[in-house]
Amino acid sequence: MDAVAKILERLESLGGISEEEGKLTRRFATPALRRANDLTGQWMREAGMSVRQDAIGNLIGHYPGAAAGAKILMLGSHLDTVPNAGKFDGALGVVLAIACVEQLAGRKLPFAIEVAAFADEEGVRYHTSYLGSRAMAGEFIEEVLNYIDAQGIEMRAALRQFGGDPDRIAQCRADPARLLGYAEVHIEQGPELEQKNQAVGVVTAIAGQTLASVTFEGKTGHAGTTPMRQRRDALVAAAHFILEVECHARKRKGLVATVGQLTVLPGASNVIPGKAVLTLEVRHEEDAKRLAAVKYFQDALRNTPASWKTVAETPTVRCSPAQIALMRKAARRHQPRVLNMVSGAGHDAAMMARITPVAMLFVRCRDGLSHHPDEMVAAADVGVALAVLSDYVNEFI
Amino acid sequence: MDAVAKILERLESLGGISEEEGKLTRRFATPALRRANDLTGQWMREAGMSVRQDAIGNLIGHYPGAAAGAKILMLGSHLDTVPNAGKFDGALGVVLAIACVEQLAGRKLPFAIEVAAFADEEGVRYHTSYLGSRAMAGEFIEEVLNYIDAQGIEMRAALRQFGGDPDRIAQCRADPARLLGYAEVHIEQGPELEQKNQAVGVVTAIAGQTLASVTFEGKTGHAGTTPMRQRRDALVAAAHFILEVECHARKRKGLVATVGQLTVLPGASNVIPGKAVLTLEVRHEEDAKRLAAVKYFQDALRNTPASWKTVAETPTVRCSPAQIALMRKAARRHQPRVLNMVSGAGHDAAMMARITPVAMLFVRCRDGLSHHPDEMVAAADVGVALAVLSDYVNEFI
Repeated sequence: MDAVAKILERLESLGGISEEEGKLTRRFATPALRRANDLTGQWMREAGMSVRQDAIGNLIGHYPGAAAGAKILMLGSHLDTVPNAGKFDGALGVVLAIACVEQLAGRKLPFAIEVAAFADEEGVRYHTSYLGSRAMAGEFIEEVLNYIDAQGIEMRAALRQFGGDPDRIAQCRADPARLLGYAEVHIEQGPELEQKNQAVGVVTAIAGQTLASVTFEGKTGHAGTTPMRQRRDALVAAAHFILEVECHARKRKGLVATVGQLTVLPGASNVIPGKAVLTLEVRHEEDAKRLAAVKYFQDALRNTPASWKTVAETPTVRCSPAQIALMRKAARRHQPRVLNMVSGAGHDAAMMARITPVAMLFVRCRDGLSHHPDEMVAAADVGVALAVLSDYVNEFI
Repeated sequence: MDAVAKILERLESLGGISEEEGKLTRRFATPALRRANDLTGQWMREAGMSVRQDAIGNLIGHYPGAAAGAKILMLGSHLDTVPNAGKFDGALGVVLAIACVEQLAGRKLPFAIEVAAFADEEGVRYHTSYLGSRAMAGEFIEEVLNYIDAQGIEMRAALRQFGGDPDRIAQCRADPARLLGYAEVHIEQGPELEQKNQAVGVVTAIAGQTLASVTFEGKTGHAGTTPMRQRRDALVAAAHFILEVECHARKRKGLVATVGQLTVLPGASNVIPGKAVLTLEVRHEEDAKRLAAVKYFQDALRNTPASWKTVAETPTVRCSPAQIALMRKAARRHQPRVLNMVSGAGHDAAMMARITPVAMLFVRCRDGLSHHPDEMVAAADVGVALAVLSDYVNEFI
């Protein structure tokens, strides 16, 4: 079987490992992610790597360098998914990195290669993103171990059950002095490469983002007996805010703002909502513009009984100029023109940039679609991405 | 122990029978309602009634009349609750009716009395109200047996587990020829009696209501990479509708419209909502005005990818003039002035009116509050209500 067919077959296998029957949902520290890690670990071993899992649940394959104590070039992406996800987001970068090592066929390079399969990039389960790469970058915040998921399971307990170790998160930290860099291949999750008819593009920056949780407080009451003007309906207040967010973001170029979750309490058709909790996510390539938007949204709540809690905040990350140059050189060998792109989506590379120079390669996806079961990458494009990543690795100094 | 203290003690006991620790939630056909029925059945027997449970789960106590085959005066209310409910809504009417029979101390009247504890008035679990009284009125729609609750449990299965019989719902129907009438005592769930400083009031009509489920269809997409103007965000569409509903209802006297439930799918902070489903409930004393509002809300969806499904529809119900007169007479004996009131909330009496003349007595509740753990009725007002209901029963011809 050729390398591309093997990659696609593996993505298919991973795509079948889910918490839910009939659709792909694989959140942090779930039995499904456990099975995905186990299977991926097998592939790493087959490619000649020794395999370990760190305390937060990241799976790491180590391919030794020519000399003992050689520095490490890290490749990777994540294995967790959003609910009802596609098969390529995250998994493609992991499987492609393993294939890249496999192609070395035992040949040693002047540096070691590690393939990281990060445990939580999407942040679905605990509403905090980059748990995996955050731990590796030494930026993990111990407090989040106390967070509970929608089923009431504390992160600490989930992690123990998963085989991680909440008491040893600090040991996940990679030693920056030993790292040469981190490179990640990922689907674009946008329409640009498709519109320009190119298989791959090189990322120059990853847009910063703010994730907040906003709670609206109202007063429950009987839906039939409480006159409209005597109500304090938390959902109506939330609806005002949602439209304010939409309206503001539409007027500002490059700004995206999304309310992706909304919970209404008590949640009965004949009870006026007493509470509404929503998530708001704000992104912009320029940190100042993102922060201005966040301030605007906070101000918009000033006359509303609502509380704002910033859950996560990531500044815009610039890829390393040297790495960008190296990745562009590799890409240009396989397609005549190579786009420089800004990633609107966050990636583990944004976190890894805190400890080492990073590079990212985007791969065209059909209709720019991601976070959706119809997410699709053409086999030919997978081939280009593998060739580019292999060249990048082989020419890495 | 005097009768009022006993009633309050029983309400306290029922208030502790819940699906959830620390708050009162007792939905249709749950183990909690099973326990509530069992306890209430004991009280009925202690009051001299024979007890049966019908196929939909209504608990019915029968107190025989002086002659065999005597016609039946039915008293009652419901034992199910909303989530995080108060202790009086529904339960007060059931416990008070039992106390009323208990006061007869075995003395037979020219008619039999039945006390009905209806199994589903709030409609929380399957989003269809009045399941209990609907079955008794012969208005049950077989199709709803196929409905599934939020945990995926089909009503048919829940009912079997509860000890009901989904194949024999038709047998729940009370014979109108044997019924003399139905009288229900219920907390007001509004502020009017408190404002006018009166313990009880007589209901002349129960406002009609329409319950609909509205589904907004959008397109999921990545929250970081999909420009605002290319989005089809189902939650934003739902928010527009919620504000349209609020705005329209505020401008029309007597109209109330409430969005009490809203579910967003897939429900991840970094995914644009592809679907939003909400419940809309509309009430007005005048059917024509309610229907006009419903039409307006349907029209408001015309340019939105949304589908409307009417879940339940109840026209305004007028209480029987003869019953109103009888209840007013009884009430005037215990308080100098007696208000005629329209019930904004729906009640089992609205369904029972389809087969027999109905009367309703409202009892003042603190701050007009209901559907809330702070729901409260003063002991003195319970005493007045019991006295009024007893006089009503004793003078019923």
